[in-house]
Amino acid sequence: MVVADVYPNYSICGLPFYLSGETPDWRSLAHRSTSALGAAGVGLLLEHQARSIDPARRSVLVRASTGRERELRYDQLVVATGATAKRAAMEGLGIPGVGVLHTMADAFTLHPLVSANASNRAVIVGAGYIGVEMADALTHRGLSVTLLGSAPSVLPTLEPDLGELLAAELRRGGVEVVTGARVDGIIEGGDGRPQVIGEDGRSWVADVVVVATGVEPDTTLATSAGIALGAHGAIAVDRRMATSASGVWAAGDCAETFHGVTAAPTYLPLGTTAHKQGRVAGENAAGGNRAFAGSIGTQVVKVFGLAAARTGLLTDEARAAGFEPRSDGGVYDDHKAYYPGATPLHVRLTGDAHSGRLLGAQVVGAAGAQVAKRIDTCATLIAEGARVDRLIDLDLSYTPPFSSPWDPLQQAAMAWERTGPLVARSALDSDELSSFD
Amino acid sequence: MVVADVYPNYSICGLPFYLSGETPDWRSLAHRSTSALGAAGVGLLLEHQARSIDPARRSVLVRASTGRERELRYDQLVVATGATAKRAAMEGLGIPGVGVLHTMADAFTLHPLVSANASNRAVIVGAGYIGVEMADALTHRGLSVTLLGSAPSVLPTLEPDLGELLAAELRRGGVEVVTGARVDGIIEGGDGRPQVIGEDGRSWVADVVVVATGVEPDTTLATSAGIALGAHGAIAVDRRMATSASGVWAAGDCAETFHGVTAAPTYLPLGTTAHKQGRVAGENAAGGNRAFAGSIGTQVVKVFGLAAARTGLLTDEARAAGFEPRSDGGVYDDHKAYYPGATPLHVRLTGDAHSGRLLGAQVVGAAGAQVAKRIDTCATLIAEGARVDRLIDLDLSYTPPFSSPWDPLQQAAMAWERTGPLVARSALDSDELSSFD
Repeated sequence: MVVADVYPNYSICGLPFYLSGETPDWRSLAHRSTSALGAAGVGLLLEHQARSIDPARRSVLVRASTGRERELRYDQLVVATGATAKRAAMEGLGIPGVGVLHTMADAFTLHPLVSANASNRAVIVGAGYIGVEMADALTHRGLSVTLLGSAPSVLPTLEPDLGELLAAELRRGGVEVVTGARVDGIIEGGDGRPQVIGEDGRSWVADVVVVATGVEPDTTLATSAGIALGAHGAIAVDRRMATSASGVWAAGDCAETFHGVTAAPTYLPLGTTAHKQGRVAGENAAGGNRAFAGSIGTQVVKVFGLAAARTGLLTDEARAAGFEPRSDGGVYDDHKAYYPGATPLHVRLTGDAHSGRLLGAQVVGAAGAQVAKRIDTCATLIAEGARVDRLIDLDLSYTPPFSSPWDPLQQAAMAWERTGPLVARSALDSDELSSFD
Repeated sequence: MVVADVYPNYSICGLPFYLSGETPDWRSLAHRSTSALGAAGVGLLLEHQARSIDPARRSVLVRASTGRERELRYDQLVVATGATAKRAAMEGLGIPGVGVLHTMADAFTLHPLVSANASNRAVIVGAGYIGVEMADALTHRGLSVTLLGSAPSVLPTLEPDLGELLAAELRRGGVEVVTGARVDGIIEGGDGRPQVIGEDGRSWVADVVVVATGVEPDTTLATSAGIALGAHGAIAVDRRMATSASGVWAAGDCAETFHGVTAAPTYLPLGTTAHKQGRVAGENAAGGNRAFAGSIGTQVVKVFGLAAARTGLLTDEARAAGFEPRSDGGVYDDHKAYYPGATPLHVRLTGDAHSGRLLGAQVVGAAGAQVAKRIDTCATLIAEGARVDRLIDLDLSYTPPFSSPWDPLQQAAMAWERTGPLVARSALDSDELSSFD
C-alpha cells in the first residue's frame, strides 16, 4: 500500500471531532493502526507518492519524501487516490488562517488556529455536511462561528424546509447562519486577518476561515495512465470496480459510483461507499468476482442536539431521473408521548406515483431519536426495490420508550398512501389466501 | 365498537410506565381518546360485554354493566377480544397484594400497592418482557424487587448468554434476579402478606406480587359461536384475517398469527402485530382485499440502561422449523470509539447455512445505541427473504457519533460469512457488468 503521508486508513470523517476537542488524540482516528495493518500482512510504503502508472508494463512509479524514485511492478493494481478539497473556485486559500479540511495534514494546520484562543471568530464557507459539522465543532471549541452557505438553505442535500430545521438548531447553538451567501474569495484584511468576500459585496473578517465547499475526485494518477474518466470527472468503473485499464481497479472518492436507484453512474464521495467499493475492488483484484451493489446516497449528520438523515433521491432528483415523484409524510413523536422525552420526528418519503416504488426518504429529529438507524430501514427497502406501502407491512420493533405500534416511518407511509392517485396495492395471489369462505 | 370496560384503544404496553410513575396520568395511555374515536365516526358502546355471537343471524348479544342485554345485528364482525393473563397454572391470584398486569383495571389494582410505601418489597413472577419491564418499573418506584424466572436465563426470547446481559443489568439496578425458579403458587403468609412458593421449597414473602407469566388468547366469545381455533388455541384465521364463520374476522391477541419466516400460523401476542392485523381485518370487513403480510416476532425491551431486541427466529427455533441454522456475530462499538460515549453492541445473526438466508437477529446494547431501529434493518431484510450477506451490501447511514463505516450489523454479517461452509454468494449476471475488459 503506497501512502503519500503517514496516515493510512484514517477516519477523515472524524476530523471535525478532533478539531472540536471531543477526540483529543488524533491517533485514535485510525480505523486500524499502522502496526495492525502490518500484522494483517499489508506492506506499507509510507511517505511515498505514486507519480504515474504504466499499464503496459504493469508498474507504478513512486517517489519517496527523500526524492528518491522507484518502480513497483504489479499483477493487479487498485487506485484509491481519493478526493481533494475543491480549490479552483476559491481564491485566497493560501492566506494564513485559512484552511480546508480533508486530510490529516489539513487538520494539523487548523488545530492550533482553533485551539489557541477561544475568543476567536471563525467563518466557515460552505453549509454542507462538513460545514455544519464544523459549525458545531468550533462552537464546542468555544469560537464564535459564522456559517456561510451559497444555497437558500443549509445542508442542501435535504429539502429546504428540513434544512431550515438544521439552521434553526445551529442558531440555537449560537451559530450565525447566512444562507444565499456566494463567496468570491478570501483576502488578507487590513489587520492581517483573513476576510471572506461575498459576491454581493458583504464581507466577513475572522481569525480562522474553514473552506468546506466540497471535494472533487483526485484523478491525476489515473489520467497519467490514460485511464478513462466517467461521471463528474471521477474514474470510470464497472460494477466490479474495473477501470478501462486491464488489471487496474479503482475504489473510493476517486471513482464514480453506481447508483442503486437510477442504475446509472454518479459521484458520491462517502466513507461508506468507499469502504464497500474497496472491498469489491480488493476481492476482484485477488481473483474474486464480486459486484458493487450500488450506493443510494444514505447520509446522516449530527449537529448539536439534532440528527438529519437522507437516503435515495430527493423529490427533484427523482423527477430529474425520470420518475414521477410524490413526497409526503409528517411530524410524529419519535416514541409514545406518554413515556418521558418524546421528541418530534420529521419524516418525508418520496415514492413514484406511478409504480408506488420507494425512491427516497428524509428524517430529521433529536440526536437521541434513532434517526440514523431509522433511515436505514428506508435504505434497505429502497435497495430491495420495494414500494412505499411495504413499510406499513414491516414488523418493526416497538416498546414505548423507543417507538409507537406504528413506527413514524409507517405513519409517514400511511400519509403517503392516503394522498393522491394510487396504483392498487398488490394483493397476494388468491391461492396464497387459504380462505375459510 | 363494543368495549367491556371504559378504555378503548389503550396502550397496555404503557402500563409498566404508569406503575413506575414515569407516566403519571393513566389517561395519556390512550392511543386515541374516546372523544377522538367518536369524532372519527366510531360508535362506542362502553361497559358492554359481548356475550355470544350468532353467525347465522349475524348478531352479537351484548350485556351492559347494568345487566341489560341487547342484540346487535352486523353485516361484518371483527372479533378483537385480545388475551387474558394466564391464570390456570397459578394458585393464589386472588390473595390481597397479588396482581396480574394486562388490563387497565389490573393496573388500577396494582397502582396503590406499589405507590403506598416505597420501602415495600415486590416479587415479580415471570422474567419475560413484562416481568423485566416491571422489575425496572418497581425499582424506579422505590421498591425492593425480586424477579423470579422459571427458565435458566431471563428473557428467554433471547438466547441465554444474551439474556445474561439483561440479568446483569437488572442486578446492577438493584434487582434480585432468581432464574430456574419454578413457582407452584402463592399463599397468604402468616403476617397476612403474600408468599410465593417455589417448586423446590424456597419461598419469597412480599408486600406486592406481580404475576407476569404470559397471556393466552381470549377465545370464549369465538368458541361460543363455533368458530374454529388454530395455533396455540387462538382463533384460526387466513391471511385476510377471516375466521371460519362467514362475515366474521378476527385480529390481535385473540387470533393466530401468520409467521413471515416459517410461513405457518403461530401465536405472537404483540401490539405491533395486533395493529397490523386490525387494519387488515377492518379493511377487508369494509369490502377490501388486503392480506396480512406476516409477523416475524420483532420485539424490543428497555431495562434500565439497556435495550434488547430480536427479530425472526432464534437458532433453536430455526432448527425446529426445518432450517439448518448457523448463528454468528460479535461485540462491536455502537459508533466510532474516538467519538465520546461508544458502547458495546452485541449482535447475533442467524442464517440458513444451506441457502444463506437471514432467519433471525438479536441485538443487545445501551439504551442510546439505536438497538431498536437497528433490529428493524434485519426485520426488513428477513421480510424480503434476503440473505445474510445482503446486509454487507446495504447503504446504511454513517457518521462517527452514530455508527461506523461498516455498521455493527454489517460487521456481524462479515463474521457470519467468514465462518463455516458457504453457498457461493450470488454474483450479478455478467451482462449487468459492463466491464471494460
